[in-house]
Amino acid sequence: METLEAIKTRRNVRQFTEQAIPDADLDQILAAGRLAPSAKNWQPWDFVVVTDREQLQRLSAVWQGGGHVAHAAAAIVLTLPVLDDPHRKLVARFDLGQVAAFIQLAAADRGVGCGHSSVGDQDLAREVLSLPADREAAVILDLGYPADRPLAPLKRHDRRPFEELVHRGRW
Amino acid sequence: METLEAIKTRRNVRQFTEQAIPDADLDQILAAGRLAPSAKNWQPWDFVVVTDREQLQRLSAVWQGGGHVAHAAAAIVLTLPVLDDPHRKLVARFDLGQVAAFIQLAAADRGVGCGHSSVGDQDLAREVLSLPADREAAVILDLGYPADRPLAPLKRHDRRPFEELVHRGRW
Repeated sequence: METLEAIKTRRNVRQFTEQAIPDADLDQILAAGRLAPSAKNWQPWDFVVVTDREQLQRLSAVWQGGGHVAHAAAAIVLTLPVLDDPHRKLVARFDLGQVAAFIQLAAADRGVGCGHSSVGDQDLAREVLSLPADREAAVILDLGYPADRPLAPLKRHDRRPFEELVHRGRW
Repeated sequence: METLEAIKTRRNVRQFTEQAIPDADLDQILAAGRLAPSAKNWQPWDFVVVTDREQLQRLSAVWQGGGHVAHAAAAIVLTLPVLDDPHRKLVARFDLGQVAAFIQLAAADRGVGCGHSSVGDQDLAREVLSLPADREAAVILDLGYPADRPLAPLKRHDRRPFEELVHRGRW
């Protein structure tokens, strides 16, 4: 799929068919996340990929709004080191946003939909994923084929108007 | 350009030719940033796009490592509201990372290279961009055609090994 088409196609998917994602496609999606930019090439992230149904169900409980993770074909948990410095925390989250975008666009390219869940219960996430104490689960991206309709470029995007958010030269 | 090709092609570019970016391409790159995902569709961002040489030169002084911005064909300054809540700050930075990724991949698709600068001197950034007091310049993405060689898929990526950062099922 063309890059600009993938950008127009990506949407938040929270209801999935039961179809599994082929290993090669899942690896390609993970590999895309690996290539995201990182300030000073820090790459603070590790990914934990989950495809076991029971484990996905347990994982879905780490956030009140994460129920959709239970029914996904796979989840990629983006983890970070536990950081103290507020500035480093911001940089790490920015980098993780870049990873998430690369993963979501690579998924869209493969016809795979992607949802997003925060992590509230860090202890449960650590237990389900056997994370070391110095790591935290920051974000869950859940993946699968959309139950409603296949991915295709959206005609209308629920976004602020272009001319409102783009300022020319100065505010 | 295919999505996965753009992902493999994107690299940090800091030296640019003097060639301007056609308005239509620059708008397409900005439009890609607009379509980035945002938790609860918050879209906390505004973009200020700068193409005036003198203004780019002034902007390049907001960060000690931002000298490359002076020589770019354009810069997109990603701004955020000034936030107090630490959690909201993290969410906003994550979203901004997604915007940055969308912009960088759309740029790569157009053969446009992209660099990145932090913002240290917030007062100077506000002055150069006429930002309101309740907004801050968070990140500068500078754009132009690479001076060294045209963009093409990289054979080798300076990244942590796939098998090191991808954990299957558990850490």
